[in-house]
Amino acid sequence: MDLNLKTHTQHFTNPLYLESGRILEPYDITYETYGEINEDKSNVVVVCHALTGSHHAAGIYEDENKAGWWDGLIGSGKAIDTDKYFVICSNVIGSCFGSTGPMSMQHPYQEYYRYKFPVITIKDMIKAQRILFDKLDIHRVHAIVGGSMGGMQALQFAIHYPNFAKNIISLAATYATQPWAIAFNKVAQESILKDPDFKQGYYDPEIITEQGLNGMAVGRMAGHISFLSHESMAKKFGREYKRDDGLYELFGKFQVESYLEYNGHNFTKWFDPLAYLYITKAINIFDLGRGFDSLAEAMKKIQAKLHLISFKDDILFKNTEMKKISDTLDEIGNNNHTYIDIDSDYGHDAFLVELDKFDNYIKEALNG
Amino acid sequence: MDLNLKTHTQHFTNPLYLESGRILEPYDITYETYGEINEDKSNVVVVCHALTGSHHAAGIYEDENKAGWWDGLIGSGKAIDTDKYFVICSNVIGSCFGSTGPMSMQHPYQEYYRYKFPVITIKDMIKAQRILFDKLDIHRVHAIVGGSMGGMQALQFAIHYPNFAKNIISLAATYATQPWAIAFNKVAQESILKDPDFKQGYYDPEIITEQGLNGMAVGRMAGHISFLSHESMAKKFGREYKRDDGLYELFGKFQVESYLEYNGHNFTKWFDPLAYLYITKAINIFDLGRGFDSLAEAMKKIQAKLHLISFKDDILFKNTEMKKISDTLDEIGNNNHTYIDIDSDYGHDAFLVELDKFDNYIKEALNG
Repeated sequence: MDLNLKTHTQHFTNPLYLESGRILEPYDITYETYGEINEDKSNVVVVCHALTGSHHAAGIYEDENKAGWWDGLIGSGKAIDTDKYFVICSNVIGSCFGSTGPMSMQHPYQEYYRYKFPVITIKDMIKAQRILFDKLDIHRVHAIVGGSMGGMQALQFAIHYPNFAKNIISLAATYATQPWAIAFNKVAQESILKDPDFKQGYYDPEIITEQGLNGMAVGRMAGHISFLSHESMAKKFGREYKRDDGLYELFGKFQVESYLEYNGHNFTKWFDPLAYLYITKAINIFDLGRGFDSLAEAMKKIQAKLHLISFKDDILFKNTEMKKISDTLDEIGNNNHTYIDIDSDYGHDAFLVELDKFDNYIKEALNG
Repeated sequence: MDLNLKTHTQHFTNPLYLESGRILEPYDITYETYGEINEDKSNVVVVCHALTGSHHAAGIYEDENKAGWWDGLIGSGKAIDTDKYFVICSNVIGSCFGSTGPMSMQHPYQEYYRYKFPVITIKDMIKAQRILFDKLDIHRVHAIVGGSMGGMQALQFAIHYPNFAKNIISLAATYATQPWAIAFNKVAQESILKDPDFKQGYYDPEIITEQGLNGMAVGRMAGHISFLSHESMAKKFGREYKRDDGLYELFGKFQVESYLEYNGHNFTKWFDPLAYLYITKAINIFDLGRGFDSLAEAMKKIQAKLHLISFKDDILFKNTEMKKISDTLDEIGNNNHTYIDIDSDYGHDAFLVELDKFDNYIKEALNG
């Protein structure tokens, strides 16, 4: 069957009360749907995106040739089967693909929010989604699936809205962001902030050259290190040298250097640096136990069946972090969860690229 | 006994023929000595420094309060006992602490070399040292010891000047720099190069503010990630927040963020960005097997007793890399080497800070 891709933007005028005590009002949420909702609305699957992802999780737009970021997983006959499920993926608030973020206009001033935008948390992101689903008259879903920051959202849903989802599938995430991941985000943030083109913290599209903001490009290179691993880089690049570059030239390049340069600079063409600051902040302060006496206390709220997937050589969110969630559930006597640790050569990136390593597992988790 | 610290600079007018085919002429080498040389000159220990190290390995200068970088290891009664050994540590060429580097004056133009400085390799660094030792009438030494880039130099000595040292002690190094380490260097290099204050690649001390070059500060933050590890950061910083910073402030800080900021910016006060570009380049192209059919062929040249030390959670130069050197030696039937892998909580930094974990091992290696 056809993917039935539809893109919408929903406008909300009611205030969104944020975890910080601040208010977002009004705000938009851009989202995409695939497949068709069934009569009793029992076939809804929510997909949550990662740091630089968007609502465009599957299918190809008419004027483009690149498919959505989880296209290999979502579609007719695929693990998240759109013949069977009605899939919704929304752009998180704070991002830059249609939902309200720091480069949106602040009502009623008609100026960009910029630093006036409130700090957003993962809990805020899912609260906004929950309000969207209410608006769509969806009050309970079959499953919530996500990787990395998407996996954080899935876990946060499980604790904060325990009756909302029957199944939670979280990949390559954590229970609370560790200093190692915060450190990588710090390099990217500082690299953006210290770029003089990022005018006193204010992104001015007018002055950005074709190459984009150099500071963000360099910061993103650090990010790309954290998405891979020592072993995956050795396998992917080795010590291969670019053919035309002399070994003894100061600016001669190894393949791994070209890879980082390309990905770093290309990134600046499609992502907003202010959104990067806000979303990495949300990731840094993510902590499932916040507001509870302990992680275990937070976990006791969970009603959904929890499926945890980690990747062995993920260095950003280590498999030990997902294991800790599983262990905590065991400790509190929760026997409604599964945990699997997947062998992979792609580090953290595995949740986006090595789909064949876990798509069957997701299919089973969805089909019960 | 007194440390007998002496600092010298030796001027050389003969050309130094570099691996690249280029020539350095004239050049200086600044070096430091501790202890006293014995009559038959059989008590010389050469210490090699890492990327940002210098000839100042031990003791405290009169007007300073910070000791040399391996002061805990070098001195009277310490592992490298200056009552017994005459220790020499020289600043590598390409660096910025007295030996000729990219911010030295190019003869006869009396202008800074800057990008006209030739690319230097680890082999060039040890060649220059060997010429210095010749000048000092030292033609064979008891041992060469070094960690990280210092460990690379020690290994390169073993292969390139097989009869020069009786013992080689290499810590936290590798047989050939892997793409993972190259990637971290890349972030630092790009961060320096993209800083507009680094004028078209030219460092102008006049325009650098008190904070130093921001690009180098940010790049160094990435470096500091690679010196630690996921586990060591978790142990050292946890998710501790700076007392006065609100969690929901965009620029509120975790302790790990403060640590990176402090170390990044402080670094710019004492290290030259051009030297950083040249020395990271030397590290990137380091490959013991270059010029040989294989690493094994290179290793067959070794005559010295080799002592290899790695650290379990070193993520920059993984213990598997040191293990590979040991395995290769085993393969070619070399039974004149030892290898130990040390448990540590400090990642790569361990070779500088957890001295008590390996100082006895170095003492034994030196005393036979």
